[in-house]
Amino acid sequence: MDVTRENFEKVLREFEAAIAQCDFVAIDMEMTGLYESKELQPSRLDTLDERYAKLKRSVELYGVIQVGVCLFTWVDGHKQGQREGAAAATDGGTDDPGGGADETANGTGDVGGYYEARPFNFNVFPSSSVGGIAVDAHFGCKSSAFEFLARNSFDFNKWVYQGVPYLRTEDAERIRKERMAMLTSRQRKIDADDRHREFVRDFEVALGAFVDSGEQVLRYETGNSYQRKLIHNIVSSHDTLGTRGRNDCIEIFKGSRSAMAKHTAQKIKTLNQNVKNARGFCAVIDLLSAARKPVVGHNMLLDVLHAFSKFHRPLPARREEFERALAQFLPVLIDTKFIIESTPGIKDRYGTSSLDEIAPMLEREAGSGLASIRLHPRFTRSASRNMHEAGYDAYMTGASFIRLLKLDGGVSRAAEQSSELVLYRYINKLHLSTATAKFWAMAS
Amino acid sequence: MDVTRENFEKVLREFEAAIAQCDFVAIDMEMTGLYESKELQPSRLDTLDERYAKLKRSVELYGVIQVGVCLFTWVDGHKQGQREGAAAATDGGTDDPGGGADETANGTGDVGGYYEARPFNFNVFPSSSVGGIAVDAHFGCKSSAFEFLARNSFDFNKWVYQGVPYLRTEDAERIRKERMAMLTSRQRKIDADDRHREFVRDFEVALGAFVDSGEQVLRYETGNSYQRKLIHNIVSSHDTLGTRGRNDCIEIFKGSRSAMAKHTAQKIKTLNQNVKNARGFCAVIDLLSAARKPVVGHNMLLDVLHAFSKFHRPLPARREEFERALAQFLPVLIDTKFIIESTPGIKDRYGTSSLDEIAPMLEREAGSGLASIRLHPRFTRSASRNMHEAGYDAYMTGASFIRLLKLDGGVSRAAEQSSELVLYRYINKLHLSTATAKFWAMAS
Repeated sequence: MDVTRENFEKVLREFEAAIAQCDFVAIDMEMTGLYESKELQPSRLDTLDERYAKLKRSVELYGVIQVGVCLFTWVDGHKQGQREGAAAATDGGTDDPGGGADETANGTGDVGGYYEARPFNFNVFPSSSVGGIAVDAHFGCKSSAFEFLARNSFDFNKWVYQGVPYLRTEDAERIRKERMAMLTSRQRKIDADDRHREFVRDFEVALGAFVDSGEQVLRYETGNSYQRKLIHNIVSSHDTLGTRGRNDCIEIFKGSRSAMAKHTAQKIKTLNQNVKNARGFCAVIDLLSAARKPVVGHNMLLDVLHAFSKFHRPLPARREEFERALAQFLPVLIDTKFIIESTPGIKDRYGTSSLDEIAPMLEREAGSGLASIRLHPRFTRSASRNMHEAGYDAYMTGASFIRLLKLDGGVSRAAEQSSELVLYRYINKLHLSTATAKFWAMAS
Repeated sequence: MDVTRENFEKVLREFEAAIAQCDFVAIDMEMTGLYESKELQPSRLDTLDERYAKLKRSVELYGVIQVGVCLFTWVDGHKQGQREGAAAATDGGTDDPGGGADETANGTGDVGGYYEARPFNFNVFPSSSVGGIAVDAHFGCKSSAFEFLARNSFDFNKWVYQGVPYLRTEDAERIRKERMAMLTSRQRKIDADDRHREFVRDFEVALGAFVDSGEQVLRYETGNSYQRKLIHNIVSSHDTLGTRGRNDCIEIFKGSRSAMAKHTAQKIKTLNQNVKNARGFCAVIDLLSAARKPVVGHNMLLDVLHAFSKFHRPLPARREEFERALAQFLPVLIDTKFIIESTPGIKDRYGTSSLDEIAPMLEREAGSGLASIRLHPRFTRSASRNMHEAGYDAYMTGASFIRLLKLDGGVSRAAEQSSELVLYRYINKLHLSTATAKFWAMAS
């Protein structure tokens, strides 16, 4: 399901309901670049601290332009009827036009059960102003990364024109506090700069005349946002005057103290709503974090750091601190590249740990008895088959994970145990380097 | 005329012929961002050195995505017939399908003469690999700049998918020298790293067997570009062996010393051609610089620095050095914003020096007797009317410049001289700040 600014609010409700039901989540991201120079590329000689420093630099330099999140839910063949009933009850409140399709499609489900996949492809762009909150983002780009995306039919216009905005909690909160202080202050805080001394003098003369007059509203023309800020601030020191921004001017109006208090309360309400809207895609990552589900990725270190840094909070300077914070943010991480590289039964069989190469092989084999995976009916119509579209890559990562666990001669046989138990050997170990199958065991 | 990768070579020939004939050139650029933060924005308190440092930082941080170059040529009503004959003789060699349209359209030209405009809108993207030359570019973006472009219908897909590549002379030359050394060296220069010791050993065994055998060609599979580099280098020490890159392998073949010398000469020829192609859009700026025509821009400081830095050579650390180099690069610069801000007769009349605002006013007045400007017939069909499309902005800048010079009560009256002489008061003075009409008088 492709998600843009237009359908985001609706999709967010659907995502919230679906993540509560799912068994695990697969993620993938597309970025505007990876490493600034050869020297800053990860090397197998890196210590973990050096690696963290390199990754942190990459994450802080480059942007995320697409986030794929695919929810996988086990549908038991025998219990299917019950689960659908429960799901329908949960979803009942939403005005979801495609919801009715579930029963028909699932009615044909096999008795042994299957994984149902819901791939979301979120296009994200850091808007410089959301609901009146100005937050201009700077991000680096690498021409090779853009060319890689172009080779995979990426739509750069959709990214900029329709990308879902985002703003981290602490940035939103900082801006909220600044605005709140402006709204509730009764003190003049801003000293006009040299160029605006005359503007302020003229305005104060006009304001004095207005206060003494019988007029109820004064319309005052302004040339720029700094002048508007000055006026709002000057008027805020009068407790029986209020301001309203208009397109080409500011309206100053008279009212009782209680009317003004009410007016300010309304402004605060609007501010809080704007801040909430400005958070945008961060709400998805909040839900992902709160769900405490296993999160699967392929060679996922950079994706995890981007998710943390762009949509949660700034990366700590020290690796140990990051690991502690990560254990709170996403407690269970599983890297399919690490599974492949560290399991000789798998690596030998396929001779590659590249998702591009191994995912189609695993998919072809799936026809011959491996775990069954189906797209949720609401996701079949819009399902992309574009490798390196983040939603599709997340789907392929999760599907490959399921198939690797079920693989004859793979994970299960290697450990001579059931796949569910073996899984624990792979938790929070992230792939670092192909040559030596080094990994990063996250502290938890 | 919109220029992309597809029509660039053809347009370059047309541009080369046209710039030789023109009287002046107007330029404009669209960038991926302006300033990193408020602190780095130009301030009217800057010294010239501080301003240069701020602008240099901006130019080195952000990318250029569109360059508008509009050529203006005075067509004398009386001499029109002669000029057309000469132009036809010059253009005769090109297979230009639209060329025939000139005579019909110009046949209606007024006797007093007019300026003929040829606006080129070059879409440019720093390709990471042009003709086998790898040069991955890093550039910053500001989300507000992308949103500004989006509000003006900018096509981001055209930029990435079809943008004309570019590579500065000295970068191209550095790469050419590196490659040339590789091609002509008979010494093994690369020491394989630890991971590739075994690869090198295996290859040398295979190569020894091949040399001793009756085979003429050895196909050797490689996994990555580093392995291919190693093989090319190992083989280069044998003066009767050559290499050819293939998609999935390298071919090593036998030949006489003279055949190998011929093979190397062919490779050098291809390399030189690739380097020439890789320069791409820089060829346009070379022609602009070589033409020694006046170059007009609106608030053009950033544009001039971008043109220098992206398409000519890196910006010098010190301002004085930049000014000396600029006098060689583009000796005559005229800033319409400086003309407006420094000429009370103009500033008072229009009350603005913003191109968005003043250009349409000047255009409306043009109907009532100001200088006549026409698009060259080959440029009318594709002429954009999108403000902030670089080609259109360059056209509007040049047109405004002509109209400002002819303006009754404007430039001419202020100086009580003919506009042609007054012009010299404005050469190489670039607008710095609206509030004080400060300017940068370039050393020349």
